Amino acid sequence: MKNPSIPKGTRDFTSKEVSQRNFIFDTIKSIFHIFGYQQIETPAMENLSTLLGKYGQEGDKLLFKILNSGNFLENITDDDFSQDNSLKISNKIAEKGLRYDLTVPFARFVVMNRDKIVFPFKRFQIQPVWRADRPQRGRYREFYQCDVDVIGSNSLMNEAELIQIIDNVYKQLKINVLIKINNRKILTGIAEIIGAKDKIIDITVAIDKTEKIGIEKVIIELLDKGIDNQSIEKLKPILMLSGSNTEKLTSLRNILKNSQIGLIGIEEIQTIFDYLDNLQLTTNIELDLTLARGLNYYTGAIFEVKALDVEIGSVTGGGRYDNLTGIFGLEGVSGVGISFGADRIYDVLNQLNLFPQLSDNQTIILFTCFGEQEQKFALSWADILRKQGISAEIFPDVAKIKKQMAYADSKQIPFVAIVGENEIQQDKVMLKNMRTGEQQLVTKEEMILKIK
Amino acid sequence: MKNPSIPKGTRDFTSKEVSQRNFIFDTIKSIFHIFGYQQIETPAMENLSTLLGKYGQEGDKLLFKILNSGNFLENITDDDFSQDNSLKISNKIAEKGLRYDLTVPFARFVVMNRDKIVFPFKRFQIQPVWRADRPQRGRYREFYQCDVDVIGSNSLMNEAELIQIIDNVYKQLKINVLIKINNRKILTGIAEIIGAKDKIIDITVAIDKTEKIGIEKVIIELLDKGIDNQSIEKLKPILMLSGSNTEKLTSLRNILKNSQIGLIGIEEIQTIFDYLDNLQLTTNIELDLTLARGLNYYTGAIFEVKALDVEIGSVTGGGRYDNLTGIFGLEGVSGVGISFGADRIYDVLNQLNLFPQLSDNQTIILFTCFGEQEQKFALSWADILRKQGISAEIFPDVAKIKKQMAYADSKQIPFVAIVGENEIQQDKVMLKNMRTGEQQLVTKEEMILKIK
Repeated sequence: MKNPSIPKGTRDFTSKEVSQRNFIFDTIKSIFHIFGYQQIETPAMENLSTLLGKYGQEGDKLLFKILNSGNFLENITDDDFSQDNSLKISNKIAEKGLRYDLTVPFARFVVMNRDKIVFPFKRFQIQPVWRADRPQRGRYREFYQCDVDVIGSNSLMNEAELIQIIDNVYKQLKINVLIKINNRKILTGIAEIIGAKDKIIDITVAIDKTEKIGIEKVIIELLDKGIDNQSIEKLKPILMLSGSNTEKLTSLRNILKNSQIGLIGIEEIQTIFDYLDNLQLTTNIELDLTLARGLNYYTGAIFEVKALDVEIGSVTGGGRYDNLTGIFGLEGVSGVGISFGADRIYDVLNQLNLFPQLSDNQTIILFTCFGEQEQKFALSWADILRKQGISAEIFPDVAKIKKQMAYADSKQIPFVAIVGENEIQQDKVMLKNMRTGEQQLVTKEEMILKIK
Repeated sequence: MKNPSIPKGTRDFTSKEVSQRNFIFDTIKSIFHIFGYQQIETPAMENLSTLLGKYGQEGDKLLFKILNSGNFLENITDDDFSQDNSLKISNKIAEKGLRYDLTVPFARFVVMNRDKIVFPFKRFQIQPVWRADRPQRGRYREFYQCDVDVIGSNSLMNEAELIQIIDNVYKQLKINVLIKINNRKILTGIAEIIGAKDKIIDITVAIDKTEKIGIEKVIIELLDKGIDNQSIEKLKPILMLSGSNTEKLTSLRNILKNSQIGLIGIEEIQTIFDYLDNLQLTTNIELDLTLARGLNYYTGAIFEVKALDVEIGSVTGGGRYDNLTGIFGLEGVSGVGISFGADRIYDVLNQLNLFPQLSDNQTIILFTCFGEQEQKFALSWADILRKQGISAEIFPDVAKIKKQMAYADSKQIPFVAIVGENEIQQDKVMLKNMRTGEQQLVTKEEMILKIK
């Protein structure tokens, strides 16, 4: 078989890319740890009964399903087949699917391990997910999510800490971002005030698009959903509120004074701001009432983070959900969490040229090879360096010096130790600094000093 | 949906297990890096055309296949269906499968990226693989492989370095192991000498089982494969060779003196031993002629590692292959590599109680929470610690001290900072050492000193 390929929407990662991706994962992980979150992992495959119906009809279609092993046809009747119903048949020949996000598997994990878990449970999870989306620039069929959640605590301090985590991560990655915050209860309050309480989902889905498609088109969509002109008129000033967060909250307190739930939402945001007041964050936080993230399960705070210097969608998002585990039979456990989009962060760092030049996992020194004796000599020198934690290679084959130097260049190895007959006799090597071009005959001890 | 479950043969990993597994991965990774190997990653899904036919008929059956998206039935005719041929239909409704090992994707990667790669290419890869095997104790349907290979070099120094890597890994993990080595050319030589050259595969598959089922049953199997009694008589003394490696090699040089390829195999092993002579390895290496690993693609050295203090199969294995990328159209690239079985290593460390007691990612200090003011005070103290890289948590909800202490216990947090009105007034906290029970009122600076 010639010219092999990989499935569309998937990627190979070269060692350079892996080391850059690990830079992102390691940064995020270390900050999760600093805040006391601990890592769990779940299987790539879940039962379809766990996944189906959790992501809406669209989501169900985007699940990758795994064909049952063995004679998967045995449950299919001629009648099934003649109906040509892909969905019905797929349910009979596939029991498992690939993880679509980390949230539903997390809820499933909590329910299955509830006896072992001490609440509040602060967990993070960094794993790939798979979606049969149409691949396009920046959208893949296999991509990583980095989720951090605390479950079993109602305290708004958790929201404040998640904002601190966002601030820490992007400060460390040197990416300028803006954190947007909203509260689902405020959105509910708005729906109440304008008298379209039952249309809350339509309203949030529509206003989520305000920034993307503009307020005019959103209004058309709202009319289309059966929300009347009078309600839309009441909605407009709310969507166009401006000023500082404090000014916005003050206006809102007045506008929503007749909505109990709306006022609770306002106080929740106020409380989070109060927590953050002492913490001198680098990142600006903006109360944005158009932020809804179209997700039905958020019940309190909603977060979204945008990179400021690059045209790209949101790089982090999340919120509070009051009943995530309810779908699996464990009621009354409130949680809040956010998800970092590693692949988008990668694109941002790449476009802004913010990746560190050299990785920690670089080879530090290459020993040349001009023969078997030289190679054995180099092996024992390399052994000494490796025992000191210095990454060393010996060119494995006898080859021209030019080829060996080109190898060192391509791997960005900073030192080359040239080993010939003379060097062996003196028990020294000719150490070449690849950046300066400087060469020097050195003993083992001198070599270690030079390199360190 | 109540009582969710996960697919059989798959596992959730709790934070303790993840941290123990990361201990294994990090140890292996750091040693791969010290030897100049660099990490790549490939997608979980591969085209079935890449995977099928590479693992034998048995392997093909164990592939997890992914149902095509959309109307996957459109290519199935009534005729296909009426034949009730699962295999034929699966080829029409599934184009992708889950990675079955890391070797075939690596070969595919090398062929697809040959223009970007500088040879010799030293890569490692640590990713999960999936097999629809019958789950049993120690055998999972999702498990990790840790593969390290160098491709594009014929030098036997690579074999020696891989043995050094094995020695380093198990020394660092504190697991006692025995490294077994053999050479496929010696096996070919043996087949030549006993006059059953065309039966080499049958012979290696059978003698691979010698240790497991005993020499008598192996002989029955060989007879069954059509190898005559005379050949088997010639084979017996070879299989029962004993003594030191040097003694075995000496005897073999005599037995195989008429087989050119057999003598080459002997010299290859001798060369590897010569390389290792200066390196003072901790691990014993044994030449074992019954080692064949049943894999058809090995052409030179064959390795296998056994844990000595636990009844478990091989924990590491590998060998040299001369034409791995040939299946994808790139001929003449020789490589050698080994694979560490992370899940078996986990079981060994677990049984021998060799995991480190505390992980690096432990929370170091928990601040108690008895009210909003106390919590805000704690937030700013925690902020100072976190900026110093010290992992700190604040209990998020107001709760009884007993509950908060139980939380600290369950997460093995070594320090608890108790914060009440008095403490806030003095700008101090009551620091409790959870191991000794000792309590002391401390300032911020004193706290940092105590903890560090």
